[in-house]
Amino acid sequence: MKQILIQKNILKNNDEIAKANREILKEKEIFTINLLGSPGSGKTSILECIIKYLNSKHRLTVIEGDLYTTRDAERLEKHQVEVVQINTGGACHLDAAMVEKATQNIDIDKLDFLVIENVGNLVCPAAYDLGEDMKITVMSVTEGHDKPLKYPSMFQRSSVVILNKMDIIEYTNFDIDEFYKDVKSLNKDIKVFEVSCITEEGIMELCNYFDSQIASKGGSK
Amino acid sequence: MKQILIQKNILKNNDEIAKANREILKEKEIFTINLLGSPGSGKTSILECIIKYLNSKHRLTVIEGDLYTTRDAERLEKHQVEVVQINTGGACHLDAAMVEKATQNIDIDKLDFLVIENVGNLVCPAAYDLGEDMKITVMSVTEGHDKPLKYPSMFQRSSVVILNKMDIIEYTNFDIDEFYKDVKSLNKDIKVFEVSCITEEGIMELCNYFDSQIASKGGSK
Repeated sequence: MKQILIQKNILKNNDEIAKANREILKEKEIFTINLLGSPGSGKTSILECIIKYLNSKHRLTVIEGDLYTTRDAERLEKHQVEVVQINTGGACHLDAAMVEKATQNIDIDKLDFLVIENVGNLVCPAAYDLGEDMKITVMSVTEGHDKPLKYPSMFQRSSVVILNKMDIIEYTNFDIDEFYKDVKSLNKDIKVFEVSCITEEGIMELCNYFDSQIASKGGSK
Repeated sequence: MKQILIQKNILKNNDEIAKANREILKEKEIFTINLLGSPGSGKTSILECIIKYLNSKHRLTVIEGDLYTTRDAERLEKHQVEVVQINTGGACHLDAAMVEKATQNIDIDKLDFLVIENVGNLVCPAAYDLGEDMKITVMSVTEGHDKPLKYPSMFQRSSVVILNKMDIIEYTNFDIDEFYKDVKSLNKDIKVFEVSCITEEGIMELCNYFDSQIASKGGSK
């Protein structure tokens, strides 16, 4: 019981900082996503794909969350994008205070698209609001179609699912009809993009979606 | 700071229950594994594969940990194996008290092999001792070879890695030499089994390994 009360305090404190983050990001008209998913679902690969298209049109920065290492940040920096690394030192999720600190290291006046790549974890990050406009879950077909019902919070709280690694779906037993049925039963309004970072299937549709979201938040600066 | 102290108390309390679990499992000569890995790494599929071979020789029970749903337990029960389901109700890992409660529902006098399938999560479950003989991490090649260095605790604390989905490695950019170099740099004594649940590559080697571990713990009853 003690444990539960403490957890509530942590989340309440987190929500307050997230609210402050959201106000600043709204004032500065920065479209902000919290990119979630299991280890190896392809979060960084998708960012590499979309940065190629979006970086010429928008002022984009990535906050890169990892337990340890700067490997993903180094991958993204090759694409001439600004990256701020957060190493959680073992913690299983980013929290709003970490994002607040990271944004203090970014020139947010010029920014129009902020991507926060969370720690690879399909459970814990769902509970922590960071101040983003939307949560987006990346899930690869190699993980199996049963994941939405087994890890429902992530899918209930996400506005978008990016279904990745579509190029190898034929080598898996992924049942795409079951997947849609389950994910829509959890969240009827969720938008699904089927993509592959190898063939680039679905990548332009995803970029166009982000374009429209950035425009509706205030557009390019 | 308060949060850190509380976390220590939770872990200390967990360690005491885990120690009691370990003493009972030792007294009853039950070889016990804590099976870990990301969502979709293939933990349940591997259990389905090995149960076919081990269930005729040993008295095997599975404690099945999930946030919600009994889907994995239902998959395993089709193979005529006793399964005890733990639903954590959203918690991101099993703890020793959950396992203690589950074992109270098992006839442990007759058991020689206990498998605890943890919640799919490459971060949090590593910190929680359950009283097992060894932690085993399942990782699929589709997750990428960079995962050991990005999620080191799990690999440092595991005695075995089961590298799964070897049948589709050629459709990925998984660098197996990098994987071995990284995983051995974290844990030089870690044992790696390369397996596929589709072709059954490596499954017999894994079963033989479990046979020898069960024998050294006391053998079949």
